[in-house]
Amino acid sequence: MKTILIVGIGAGNPEHLTVQAINALNRADVLFIPDKGAGKADLAGLRRDICDRYVNNPASRRVEYGVPRRDAANPDYGAGVHDWHDALAAIFARLIDAEVPENGVCAFLVWGDPSLYDSTIRIIGRLHGPAHKVEIIPGITAIQALTAAHGIALNRIGEPVHVTTGRRLGEDGVRSDTIVMLDGQTAFATLDDPDLDIFWGAYLGTPDEILIEGPLPEMRDRIVETRKAARARHGWIMDTYLLRKREG
Amino acid sequence: MKTILIVGIGAGNPEHLTVQAINALNRADVLFIPDKGAGKADLAGLRRDICDRYVNNPASRRVEYGVPRRDAANPDYGAGVHDWHDALAAIFARLIDAEVPENGVCAFLVWGDPSLYDSTIRIIGRLHGPAHKVEIIPGITAIQALTAAHGIALNRIGEPVHVTTGRRLGEDGVRSDTIVMLDGQTAFATLDDPDLDIFWGAYLGTPDEILIEGPLPEMRDRIVETRKAARARHGWIMDTYLLRKREG
Repeated sequence: MKTILIVGIGAGNPEHLTVQAINALNRADVLFIPDKGAGKADLAGLRRDICDRYVNNPASRRVEYGVPRRDAANPDYGAGVHDWHDALAAIFARLIDAEVPENGVCAFLVWGDPSLYDSTIRIIGRLHGPAHKVEIIPGITAIQALTAAHGIALNRIGEPVHVTTGRRLGEDGVRSDTIVMLDGQTAFATLDDPDLDIFWGAYLGTPDEILIEGPLPEMRDRIVETRKAARARHGWIMDTYLLRKREG
Repeated sequence: MKTILIVGIGAGNPEHLTVQAINALNRADVLFIPDKGAGKADLAGLRRDICDRYVNNPASRRVEYGVPRRDAANPDYGAGVHDWHDALAAIFARLIDAEVPENGVCAFLVWGDPSLYDSTIRIIGRLHGPAHKVEIIPGITAIQALTAAHGIALNRIGEPVHVTTGRRLGEDGVRSDTIVMLDGQTAFATLDDPDLDIFWGAYLGTPDEILIEGPLPEMRDRIVETRKAARARHGWIMDTYLLRKREG
C-alpha cells in the first residue's frame, strides 16, 4: 500500500515549517511540486527553497507537474470547481501510479494548512484504484501569519470569529469579526460600515510582506491601490484580512 | 529595551513546533513556564519536554510561575476575565522586571496559537512601565490538529466556517460549519438537529488523543460519557469539535 502525505508548509516563511512537516518531507520517496505557470514562479521557487533547506533524505526525488487552470468562465462556480478537481484527480492518480514505488511514500506540499481553502484532501479523496493510506500534517495558515504580523489576537474575549471568502462576504456581509480569504474581487471595498477596522496583509511571512491597518473607510482606497501595484509588480498576489467592529 | 516573545507551541504534539518557534525559544534568556496546579501537571510536563527537546541555548533559564484562577463565580463573565487579566498583568510585570536582564529577551510559551482563545497578547498589551518590544510566533492550533486527525478539510468548497465557544454556541446555535472551543459545558449535547455531524477530539496531538465522529444524535451520549471518563482519569481535559450540516 502506498502512503500519501499531505503536508502543510506554512504561509510563505520557510521557518513556518513544523518539525512534523520536516520529518514528513524526509519520509517521502517522492515530493510532488506543482508548477502553476510563469506568473507564480516566486511560489514555485519558495517551495524549492523549502525542499533545499529541509530535505536531507538522499533517496528523495522531486517531481514537478503542471496544474490546469480552473474554468473561471463557468457561470456555475460549484460545477467549475468539480470539473477542475476531476482533472486534478486524474493527474494525481497518474503521478502516484507512475512515480511512487510499491509501499512507497509520496508527499504533496500545500501552502498554509491542508484543511483551509485548499482542495488537496478532497482531490486525494476522489482517487479510485489501489488502496492507499493518507496522512495530513497541519501547517501555519495565512490567518495566523496575519494576526502575528499585526500583533493582535484573532478573537475578542469569548467572542466568535467567522472565516469566509470574498465571494461570500459580498453575499453575507459582516456579522462578527470576520477573516476573509480568496478575495480577488476586493469585496471589502463594497462595505460602507464606518465602524469597521481592517487588518490587511499580503505576501505574509515573506520578505515582500505588506501590512495595512486602520478604519476601513480611510484605508479602503489605499489597500485597493497597494494591492493593484503589488500584483502588477509580482505578477500574482495572495492577501487576507480581518474585519473587526470597533469597540465602544 | 526588553523583548517579549509570545510563542505558539502547538496543540500537544512536540513535533508541532515550527522552526521559527524553536529559534525563538533559543533566543530567549528566560523562558516563562506557567504552573497551573497539580490537576494540570501533564501539561506542565509537556511544556518541559518541549524545552528539553529543542532548547540548546546554554544561557537560557526557565522560570516557573503560579497562575491565579479566574473567579468563575463572578456572574459578569467579562468583568471576571478583566480582573483575572489584571492579576496576570501584575505577575508578568514583576517577572519581566525581576528576571529579564536589560536588553534581554524572554519568551512566554502558549498552547496552540497565541491569537486564538488565549489572552497572553492582551495581557502583555496591558503592561505599563518600561517600553518593550513584542513578537508573536504562530503555532499549530487544536482546530488544525482536529481536522488533520479526522482526515477532513475544515471548510467545504467556497463555504465559510464559524469559530466559537461553548458558551456562544448555546446562545447562537449553528449557522454554518462551526468549530467549538472552550466547551466545558458540552453545549453540543443541547442541540437536536438530526442533520448535524460531529467531529470531536480530545488531547489532540498527544498519545492520549481520542477521536469520535458521526451523526450528532447517535454520538452525543457517547462523547459525553467518553469525555467524563477521560476527565476523571487525567484530572483535566482539552477538547474541540466541528459541527457540520450533512450534505444532500
